Parts: sequence; C-alpha cells; structure tokens
Amino acid sequence: MLKNDLLLKALRGEQVSRPPVWMMRQAGRYLPDYIKLREQYDFFTRVQTPELATAITLQPVDQVGVDAAIIFSDILVIPQAMGLEVTLEEGKGPFLPHTIKTQADIDALITTSAEESLHYVMSALQLTKKELNGRVPLIGFAGAPWTILCYMVEGKGSKTWDKAKQFAYTQPLLAHLLLQKITSITIAYLKAQVKAGADTVQVFDSWAGSLSPADFKTFAQPYLFQIADALKDDAPVILFPKGSWYALKDISNSSAAGVGIDWCVSPQMARTFTQNKITIQGNFDPAKLLAPVPEIKKAVKEMIDAFGTQRYIANLGHGITPNVPVDHAKAFVEAVKEYGA
Amino acid sequence: MLKNDLLLKALRGEQVSRPPVWMMRQAGRYLPDYIKLREQYDFFTRVQTPELATAITLQPVDQVGVDAAIIFSDILVIPQAMGLEVTLEEGKGPFLPHTIKTQADIDALITTSAEESLHYVMSALQLTKKELNGRVPLIGFAGAPWTILCYMVEGKGSKTWDKAKQFAYTQPLLAHLLLQKITSITIAYLKAQVKAGADTVQVFDSWAGSLSPADFKTFAQPYLFQIADALKDDAPVILFPKGSWYALKDISNSSAAGVGIDWCVSPQMARTFTQNKITIQGNFDPAKLLAPVPEIKKAVKEMIDAFGTQRYIANLGHGITPNVPVDHAKAFVEAVKEYGA
Repeated sequence: MLKNDLLLKALRGEQVSRPPVWMMRQAGRYLPDYIKLREQYDFFTRVQTPELATAITLQPVDQVGVDAAIIFSDILVIPQAMGLEVTLEEGKGPFLPHTIKTQADIDALITTSAEESLHYVMSALQLTKKELNGRVPLIGFAGAPWTILCYMVEGKGSKTWDKAKQFAYTQPLLAHLLLQKITSITIAYLKAQVKAGADTVQVFDSWAGSLSPADFKTFAQPYLFQIADALKDDAPVILFPKGSWYALKDISNSSAAGVGIDWCVSPQMARTFTQNKITIQGNFDPAKLLAPVPEIKKAVKEMIDAFGTQRYIANLGHGITPNVPVDHAKAFVEAVKEYGA
Repeated sequence: MLKNDLLLKALRGEQVSRPPVWMMRQAGRYLPDYIKLREQYDFFTRVQTPELATAITLQPVDQVGVDAAIIFSDILVIPQAMGLEVTLEEGKGPFLPHTIKTQADIDALITTSAEESLHYVMSALQLTKKELNGRVPLIGFAGAPWTILCYMVEGKGSKTWDKAKQFAYTQPLLAHLLLQKITSITIAYLKAQVKAGADTVQVFDSWAGSLSPADFKTFAQPYLFQIADALKDDAPVILFPKGSWYALKDISNSSAAGVGIDWCVSPQMARTFTQNKITIQGNFDPAKLLAPVPEIKKAVKEMIDAFGTQRYIANLGHGITPNVPVDHAKAFVEAVKEYGA
C-alpha cells in the first residue's frame, strides 16, 4: 500500500536503494506554517485537535520532502492520561504542578484506558493516515518510562534531574512501581497507536543520558526492553535513549528494530557496538544545520559514507531547533536523497 | 614539603596506599560557611579578594577532609582578562553583554598580561599555599579554549551551544583565531599559577561533550593538547573534557597526566580506552550524594573496586550541587579514606 516504504525496509534490515530520511521535531517551530497555527491555538489545543495535529504532521512531508511523517503530539500526554496536570508555557517548557512523592501519589495514578483518554491521538493518526494516502509511513511515539518519571517527580525540566535520581536512589521500590505503571500504560498506548495506523513507533528516552551505565541498566533499560518485547509483533520499535551510547550493545540484542543515536557517537563506534544487528538512526548535529548549505551537504555525504546505506536511517541526533532556516532543513533531506546519485 | 602528596603521586603514576579524593566545586554552595560569605560579598568580590578566596578554598580541607585544595576562582576570569565584561547573577549563571561576532571583536581582545590582570588569583594561590602549610596539594585551574569560546560567543549558558557552533561552522578561520588567542593567554595564566604555588592544574572543558568526535578533534582537542604540552615541565595537567568519552584514547596518549570523566563512562570502559596510560579522575554522580549515607559508602567502594586504587583519583563526575548535605559529602570522602582499611 505504501508508495515509499524505505523507512520500514531499513527497519526490517531489507535492501534499500538509499537510506530513508526524517528529522526529529520535523513538524515544529522552524516552519512558518507551524508558527501561524501556534499563533492561533495553544500547544495542547494543537495536540488534542486531530485536524490541527494532522495538518502539522503533514507540513514537513509536503514542504521538506521527508520519507516519513511522525504524528504531532507530546510525550507528556501519558502523565495527563494517568491523571496528572501538565501545562506548557511557550518557550518555557512543561510544568506539572502536582509531582510524585509518595506511594499514595503512585497509587492514585490512572493506568487504564490510555486508548480512551488519548482518543484524540488515535483520531489524529487515523486522519493523518488517510491524508497521507500511502505516500510515506507514519511514525507513532511515546516517552520512555525513565524520562516520564523524571518529569513526574521533578515537575519541570532540569539540567541534572537530581530530584528524580534522589527519588530513585532513596526509594527504589517506589521508583520501580512507578516505572512499571508507566510502562504498562505506554505499551497499551503504543499498541493503540499501531491499531490506529502507526507503521512504526519510537520511544524517546530523552534523559537516559543523565544516568550512569549501571543506573541505566536498573531504571531505564528493563522498561525500554519490556516495551520493545510487547510491541515486536505489532510494529518495528525504535528506541532512542539519548546519550546512552554505553547501552548500544545491549540494545542491539533486544527486540527493538532500530536505535537512535546522537552525534557524540561516531558512526564507526556505533557500528562496532551494534555489530550490524540493529538499524541505526541518526546522528546529524542539529546545530550543523546552521552551517552554510554546501557544508551541510558535505557533512551529510560523509555521514552516510561512514554509516553505509543499509540498516541506516538518516536523521538528526536530537530535535531540529527553531532557528534553522527551512532551506537548510531541505538541503539536509535533499543531500540524503541525492546520495550515490 | 607536602605532608599528604597522594594526589601528586597518583598523577605521576606512583604507588599509593589509597586513592586521593577531592570534589569538583568542593568550595561552594553546599557549605554553610560559604553561604555566610556569599551573603556578605558578591561573586567577583569573593574571587578577587585573596583573603576571601583563600578562606573559601580552605573550608573543604578543614571541614570535609579532602586530599587537595582547589583555588576558589572562576573560568570566566580569562574573558575578563581579555577585556570582556562578565557579570554573574546568583543562581542565574554568567552573562557577557558584549559577545564575539567578527574579526574586529577578536582583534580587540587583550592577550598579554594575564599574570598582571589576574594578579589576585596569584595572590590567592600564594596566600592559600602559606595557610595550607603543606597539608595537601593546591590545584590551579582554567577553562578550556572551546568552553571559553562558547561563553564569549553566546554571552551566557546554553543547552545546545548552537550559536557557538554556528560561529565555528560558518567562520572556522575566525574560530581558530579566537581559540588560539584563548589558548595562548591560558598557557601564560596556568604557568603563572604554578609559579604562585599551584602543584597541579586542571583544565575544565565543560561543554566539550556538546561536540561530535570529529568537531572535538577540530575545535577542542588541539588546544587542550597545546596547553598540556606547554605545561608538562611545570606541573601535572588534568584535562576534563566533560562528556567527551570518545576522546579518552587520544587523551591517554597526550602530555596530560590525568583525565577527568563523568559517570556516563563505566570504569571498565574508561580503563579499556586509556589502557592505564593516564591517571583517571572521577566519576561519582553528584546526584548520588543525595542517596542515604550507607548507599553512598557502598557506591564509593564499588567505584574504587572497579577503577582500582592505582592511577586513580576519586572525585565526582561533575560539580557538587548545592542541595547535598555536608554529612553526605563527608561520607563520600570518608569512604575513600576507609577503602581497604
């Protein structure tokens, strides 16, 4: 049914003519049409209105030419589905006024009915799928349990996540109870996304890299792997534990089909750690999209030379930043498409 | 002359009875006596008044029992010495109102007389050395050229340092010109610190980890190595490019005597990368100082078990945070001192 299934082929380890390309946060603040919608509707209105979420999801497919759409949403819909209030002030980041401190706080969390309470995500996926009409695959996503715990405990962003870590170090049983609750609802949520039309799902562990290898193995990895195991017969799963290069070997032996890496791992190191057992996604430094276009194109070519064209998805190593000119984003995508031509 | 020269022995690769221990930011906001001085004198008054800097430097030696003193100062005294205004609002981080944008901005920088303009640092070192009376070694320090460039170009802290990177990617010749100017004055500054009494010097590349391995090799490593080469006959040099685990092998083959690592590198990986050719310093997660004291002691023991007692300096992987109870900092230091006893 898909006219362009490069992404899915790459995730299945099948031969491709060139690597697929998409960009984390490709539907976002660097696009003038997104900014227009932002001026009219606040963040969670955009997330919760399927027509708006679909329009935003399609913008980079139409305007930048990426090989996949990723549904416009937010990882913090899960804390919302679990009963926690989440607000977002534009440019200031998320805020959760009621943080998790005790067993009673965890007991009070709702763990059923993600499909029901997050129905607007499924509607947006269905609508986007229809509008895409098979042009490119559609990616669903969720936050990883450790990253969601970070926000639930801290209530906002942090440089060090030391409150979240303090919670994990001083009350490990409670931390695991919370991580398991998040994991269970996330599995149900991702399965519902696949049912609604997602061709693949990505799990964002944005703050995994704040953990030591030993703590990652304790508080992050088991839950990531539980999700990958649970979804493996539904759709290919991409894990993106940002900064956790040290876990690449273990992840390459998991049920995940793909793993995201940032630009701090060289392609050679990433291939050495993973032994070609998993598809690698990444790892262009978004700041390099601020370089002149010829420099971007040269750097993309070098990146693909180093990763190789197979079992590889060209992407950034983190979300695209609002200050990137649209032409530079296009140059990134074009350079991948032109590779080898 | 030194009664406790464990740190210097470890840096020279000599046999020690136990690893030396100190903590980055050990003179700082977690200590009640520091907070008292902060209430009376603003930040740069504390830095620029030798009696205050000395009193602050000695606090953790007297109160926490560390095996080394590190002079109380700031990496941004170098931009000040080069003629740039730097202000610091308590809890808000540094601010440089006039940032570097053009060749003219770089040409206008002062590159002579670090010893003269930063005379208060040398006075503080001399006074501290006298007050220490040989109890423990005294550490001098400076910021690494890449990290100083980051502040000079951005004017303040950043999550992504994309303005600094944009400067480097779009105007590489200017970036190298600036990095070389910073390097030259930093070498003179560190030599003056050694002359004034520093037994060893540490170079903090706090934002090195924002760079890809290739960009680190272009914009950070050559200048770090220039400093290590220039100082090698003066005092042992410790390089701390936070987050740049990928550079450990190259650094172990440089003129540096020691290398700092954060908690995202396991001791085993760090030893594998460096092949015991350099002394490793680190790598306790400061957030783990918020765990209960028995957990801290257990984790310290495991850390030393993993690194081994030789060619190793017990430290944190980043600065101690203000919310750490003094007793927990003491427990960290005591656990190292008790190791094997």
